[in-house]
Amino acid sequence: MAQNLQESTPQKITPRSENYSQWYLDVIRQGSLAEPAEVVKGCMVIKPHGYAIWEKIQQNLDKRFKDTGHENAYFPLFIPESFLKKEAEHIEGFSPELAVVTYAGGKQLEEPYVVRPTSETIIGYFFSKWIGSHRDLPLLINQWANVVRWELRTRMFLRTSEFLWQEGHTAHATHEESIAETLRMLDVYAQFAEEVMAMPVIKGVKTETEKFAGALTSYCIEAMMQDGKALQAGTSHDLGQNFGKAFDVKFQDQSGQLQYVWQTSWGVSTRLIGGLIMTHSDDNGLVLPPKLAPIQIVIIPIYRKEEEKAQTLEFSNTLAVSLKEKGLSVKLDARDNYKPGFKFFEWEQKGVPVRIEIGPKDMANNQVVIKRRDTGEKLFVSSASAVEKCNDLMIQIQKDLFEKAKKLRNDNTHIINSYDQFKEQIEKPTPGFLVCHWNGKKETEAKIKEETKATIRCSPLDTPDDNGKCIITGEPSKKRVVFARAY
Amino acid sequence: MAQNLQESTPQKITPRSENYSQWYLDVIRQGSLAEPAEVVKGCMVIKPHGYAIWEKIQQNLDKRFKDTGHENAYFPLFIPESFLKKEAEHIEGFSPELAVVTYAGGKQLEEPYVVRPTSETIIGYFFSKWIGSHRDLPLLINQWANVVRWELRTRMFLRTSEFLWQEGHTAHATHEESIAETLRMLDVYAQFAEEVMAMPVIKGVKTETEKFAGALTSYCIEAMMQDGKALQAGTSHDLGQNFGKAFDVKFQDQSGQLQYVWQTSWGVSTRLIGGLIMTHSDDNGLVLPPKLAPIQIVIIPIYRKEEEKAQTLEFSNTLAVSLKEKGLSVKLDARDNYKPGFKFFEWEQKGVPVRIEIGPKDMANNQVVIKRRDTGEKLFVSSASAVEKCNDLMIQIQKDLFEKAKKLRNDNTHIINSYDQFKEQIEKPTPGFLVCHWNGKKETEAKIKEETKATIRCSPLDTPDDNGKCIITGEPSKKRVVFARAY
Repeated sequence: MAQNLQESTPQKITPRSENYSQWYLDVIRQGSLAEPAEVVKGCMVIKPHGYAIWEKIQQNLDKRFKDTGHENAYFPLFIPESFLKKEAEHIEGFSPELAVVTYAGGKQLEEPYVVRPTSETIIGYFFSKWIGSHRDLPLLINQWANVVRWELRTRMFLRTSEFLWQEGHTAHATHEESIAETLRMLDVYAQFAEEVMAMPVIKGVKTETEKFAGALTSYCIEAMMQDGKALQAGTSHDLGQNFGKAFDVKFQDQSGQLQYVWQTSWGVSTRLIGGLIMTHSDDNGLVLPPKLAPIQIVIIPIYRKEEEKAQTLEFSNTLAVSLKEKGLSVKLDARDNYKPGFKFFEWEQKGVPVRIEIGPKDMANNQVVIKRRDTGEKLFVSSASAVEKCNDLMIQIQKDLFEKAKKLRNDNTHIINSYDQFKEQIEKPTPGFLVCHWNGKKETEAKIKEETKATIRCSPLDTPDDNGKCIITGEPSKKRVVFARAY
Repeated sequence: MAQNLQESTPQKITPRSENYSQWYLDVIRQGSLAEPAEVVKGCMVIKPHGYAIWEKIQQNLDKRFKDTGHENAYFPLFIPESFLKKEAEHIEGFSPELAVVTYAGGKQLEEPYVVRPTSETIIGYFFSKWIGSHRDLPLLINQWANVVRWELRTRMFLRTSEFLWQEGHTAHATHEESIAETLRMLDVYAQFAEEVMAMPVIKGVKTETEKFAGALTSYCIEAMMQDGKALQAGTSHDLGQNFGKAFDVKFQDQSGQLQYVWQTSWGVSTRLIGGLIMTHSDDNGLVLPPKLAPIQIVIIPIYRKEEEKAQTLEFSNTLAVSLKEKGLSVKLDARDNYKPGFKFFEWEQKGVPVRIEIGPKDMANNQVVIKRRDTGEKLFVSSASAVEKCNDLMIQIQKDLFEKAKKLRNDNTHIINSYDQFKEQIEKPTPGFLVCHWNGKKETEAKIKEETKATIRCSPLDTPDDNGKCIITGEPSKKRVVFARAY
């Protein structure tokens, strides 16, 4: 709704150093990404610019899911309440967050329906109908949908009562195959996060305390935000036979024996947009990696006199056409009722990676001015090489954003060897990842959380074993885990 | 879930002449399009093949919406109950069908939330926040979402308690502009239906009785199914200032006066898939127009001896690659554990427009056998020209399906000049469209519906005025309307 800004100077964004939470909300507001729904507790409206980013995320992920053999389907929004109770851990985990439909069509329902918080149960029910033989396996399904979890504390994109996501659900003949699937999709998520979102992630295993309610093992990708807090960006669960047993999903194996299937589920959500914001954006607003920018390049014609106008617009338009032919997404902002400075500000706040300014002087010199959103760098480029330069910049900016984020993460990752050191680090303004030994016990994990608000984000997959001692109890530990305060 | 069929002969489809309703359900089952959810009243699961068709519908429509200047956004699933009551006709129309969330997060809600049956009210609320000046207009928004209407009688795709759809919502400065938008989107729907679905439609105006609850005027596209019943395939509503007034959506016009906006809304849903089925399919199952077929061409290699296998597969694979390079969607069915006859049957039931058979004899003759799903025609084509032929066939089949459907509609459209004639025609096995004069009164419309189960589908836009007399009362009428029994 750019139109809202028309008569006023664009609003400023609170600097991160002053108030990081307010900065986050300001970036969302000024980027026209979303706004709180207010009248529907904890929900938000995803505005066109925010939704366009979600569409780019969807398209890219959807192709990766299909390339790995998954098919999309759609299951009901409503789930009979009794379904959730069939898996004991599952209902225990989700019960505080459920929204429940108790009457419909003017009548009290005999059995209430839960609005899906996730779909393992209803999909388990259908898998039991669809699977009979080992030849029906693997069954590889994905669903794009809205889900509802009634959260106490909400924050736009990161945690909302309703959110949009995808949930993959697969069934396999052996545990070996379902573990392979769980890890394959974790890799898909990690590659997407790093290659497309330019957001470095750690792949790891969740602890018992942090795992998905109903899973044997939960895997995750964890990212670090600019303020040194962690964000769980995606999860992939080895469900074992838990839902298979709860919903009687059996198949006849090659020897004719009836066996329960082995299942997985995995999901990412609109939360990714929150991660995207807090990975790249700055005090001027949103910064988007080129691969997810709905508009990659904005062209702003600059003229004072009426006779300059036609020529500048024609020049701008010719360039826009060439850029589009190169496959770039371009917006020519030819609005008459705004000054260039206002437009600069607006598109900066919306995160457009590259701005091109074209004025009479530039045309006379046969050049254009290119400004990078991420670094603020200004380049003077000959008109003839502008298209090539923009194309190169898309690749360069994507790479630079990733490297910058990776450096921030590395600079804020600390090897911790004592609880005193832990407590000192966690209280710093940018606490970061605290990598330390832990005795593997729930009680220790709970004590640390209680005393420091830090949780175990994961036990990383890609780091070697490293014998050491738990920072609390001194008990032996074979591997360091990653602690952090988290969103 | 083709896998289900593995060990058994594919199930047969009830012939249309025997039981049209059962035929419809059989086509859906054998085409693996969907199945009833049973445990969630009136809901269905959209299976991968059905969902793939919906994705093709979405992609094509979404481009048309964007090309006409609309942006996608997402609004909350839940709507405060009081919102629906702000527009009197709206709540009266929707109240019998609402599903209501009364507790969430373990607590009774102070105000229940309605699960959206449509989003005019919640979007009206946000429009009032976003619109201030004439420069904010037009505001052109679309949403892809699920909606819930608790229907008493449901039928897969055609009427389900939950369904998927898109809903466009726009706001304009003048009634002239909002009417133009309403008709523009009606045209988009009509073009999509005819060009992509190969389903001829009549564009028309709904009567007061049949219009959307809360609209000034509802426009629709109406299609005729093979059994001579009508299907409302899409609607576009001129909402006037009804929701603008209910939600206080005002703008300052160019003279500085505050005015209510003029709004439109328009939608199509997964119901289109029901229309697609009943327009083209036959007693062998689904028939899909090439533009909506997830798989356009299936290649079936035929071999008996092991030494024939490698050669046939290689030949098939080479052809598949060439077809894909041409931009066609191809499946090479190289499954070992099925006989060719079984595969023929399966892909026919799934509606794949063209099948290519390749056996040792064909290869020896340097030819392939091509079979059209729609006509059953078999063509023997030289290998060298197979790609070109397939490409031509896509265009030809698309065209032929449309012409065939148009002929069926025209053959079953009857000019009716007396109520006796009307009653005789409506009782025929294929009643069709009854085009006749009506006095424009609700009472007459109600009497005809009561006595014949026929409703006024629309007053067509593209037919000239034609002075005549109401078939019931003899009162003067300026235009014939279209009656039919409808889904």
